[in-house]
Amino acid sequence: MAELSARKEITVIREGERRLTDDEVVVEAPLTIYLNGRELVTLLCTPDKLESLALGFLRSEGLLNSLDDVAALRLRDDRGAVEVELKNKGGLLEKLYGRRTITSGCGKGTIFYSALDALRSSPVRGDSVTLTAGEVHALMRELQERATLFKATGGVHAAALAGGGKILIFCEDIGRHNAVDKIIGECLRQGMAMEDKVLVCSGRLSSEILLKAAKLRLPMLISRAAPTTLSIELAQTLNITLVGFVRGRRMNIYTHPHRVIDARNA
Amino acid sequence: MAELSARKEITVIREGERRLTDDEVVVEAPLTIYLNGRELVTLLCTPDKLESLALGFLRSEGLLNSLDDVAALRLRDDRGAVEVELKNKGGLLEKLYGRRTITSGCGKGTIFYSALDALRSSPVRGDSVTLTAGEVHALMRELQERATLFKATGGVHAAALAGGGKILIFCEDIGRHNAVDKIIGECLRQGMAMEDKVLVCSGRLSSEILLKAAKLRLPMLISRAAPTTLSIELAQTLNITLVGFVRGRRMNIYTHPHRVIDARNA
Repeated sequence: MAELSARKEITVIREGERRLTDDEVVVEAPLTIYLNGRELVTLLCTPDKLESLALGFLRSEGLLNSLDDVAALRLRDDRGAVEVELKNKGGLLEKLYGRRTITSGCGKGTIFYSALDALRSSPVRGDSVTLTAGEVHALMRELQERATLFKATGGVHAAALAGGGKILIFCEDIGRHNAVDKIIGECLRQGMAMEDKVLVCSGRLSSEILLKAAKLRLPMLISRAAPTTLSIELAQTLNITLVGFVRGRRMNIYTHPHRVIDARNA
Repeated sequence: MAELSARKEITVIREGERRLTDDEVVVEAPLTIYLNGRELVTLLCTPDKLESLALGFLRSEGLLNSLDDVAALRLRDDRGAVEVELKNKGGLLEKLYGRRTITSGCGKGTIFYSALDALRSSPVRGDSVTLTAGEVHALMRELQERATLFKATGGVHAAALAGGGKILIFCEDIGRHNAVDKIIGECLRQGMAMEDKVLVCSGRLSSEILLKAAKLRLPMLISRAAPTTLSIELAQTLNITLVGFVRGRRMNIYTHPHRVIDARNA
């Protein structure tokens, strides 16, 4: 079975002190489900219990009801795929479903993670975009102070766009991905450039969030929460600075730490 | 603009004491995006900045690049819809995209929230399935103790199926929805009945999680995190007991509290 976590070299800043170390990061991997020989969906997931994930997904979608409906179930670990053959092929739901390709991922799953996407998103510049560690912490504090809907309900994610060390746009949504899409839409409507800004999130930095940012040439993402192996690898390739676990007086910088500078050099 | 949160009457159990009160719950609402007159996608979201959400979603999906591509943008608040007309109609991406209907939601969005879904999921029975408050807390403690991947990485959700006050199946995944689908798949493979079991989650109880459970006739969901208005309304209709914010010595029971019994009556 695939490993579920991986050691990544990171830069930790704690109480102003910067040091290189390594940290355990959760593995994010694509799983493509083939139903009766046809590609149905690609999920971004933690690569274990993959046959169960495929069966459960098909059950949730109403494409099968019990194991009795299944003629064959094959894990193609090398290809990140599960093949499911139903006894009763070509049912109505399968026909309806067969007409769509859905990519789900852990979040709002319509951004297909593929080499293509990574290639289309060529490396970002924005190397002049820098923040001091103090500014990173201040942005995260402001994000939390402004999260009034979260304070009232505990049920939403917050996202913000920052420039010049200040939050310029702030959104909350029950969906991590929706919150970021709202930020993007606000930028479009205000005609605001994004390639010199920083995305501040309350939620996890999965590959889909990273790709949203990469498509907008955003050079830096910071979050209170964890990244995944896939988002770190994409950020590395795309020259994006990924900062996670921004809490209290510490943060983890997973890629391109040059954009987080010491106050004394600021 | 629509309200972003609503007061819901709940039963709070704290330190063994049970009382009726009310609590602020985040509103979850469907937003359907029409592109050039054709239904493209339905997102489950927090109903504000809806035009920005639609624009940002289309930008993230590569269906537009800037506001210059947009001929018209109309919010149909009454119908929970945003209509977007592009200047350049019938582009390749739109053609490709037009062939699929994606439902996204805040999570893995392929379960379309619709009246249909609610109807298909007729009310569950399972009124004999009960837990004491102590058993609810014990299940949540066990979920957290077993969440070794979360402890190592901080980047995953946990889900479990419990019966007779014990955890029978446990899964972790970067995706809230994946974790639940893994549980469902494990049940199918083990031939385990679900209509007398309890679903235990670390993550938020959105409408899509609720509908997954309803389709399996699960009578009770408990979570450390928050529900949404939509999941509460569905649980109410479907006779499902929804318990949220199970933390320390307290919990909030949002619907059908009769399944959480006093120890002395147990």
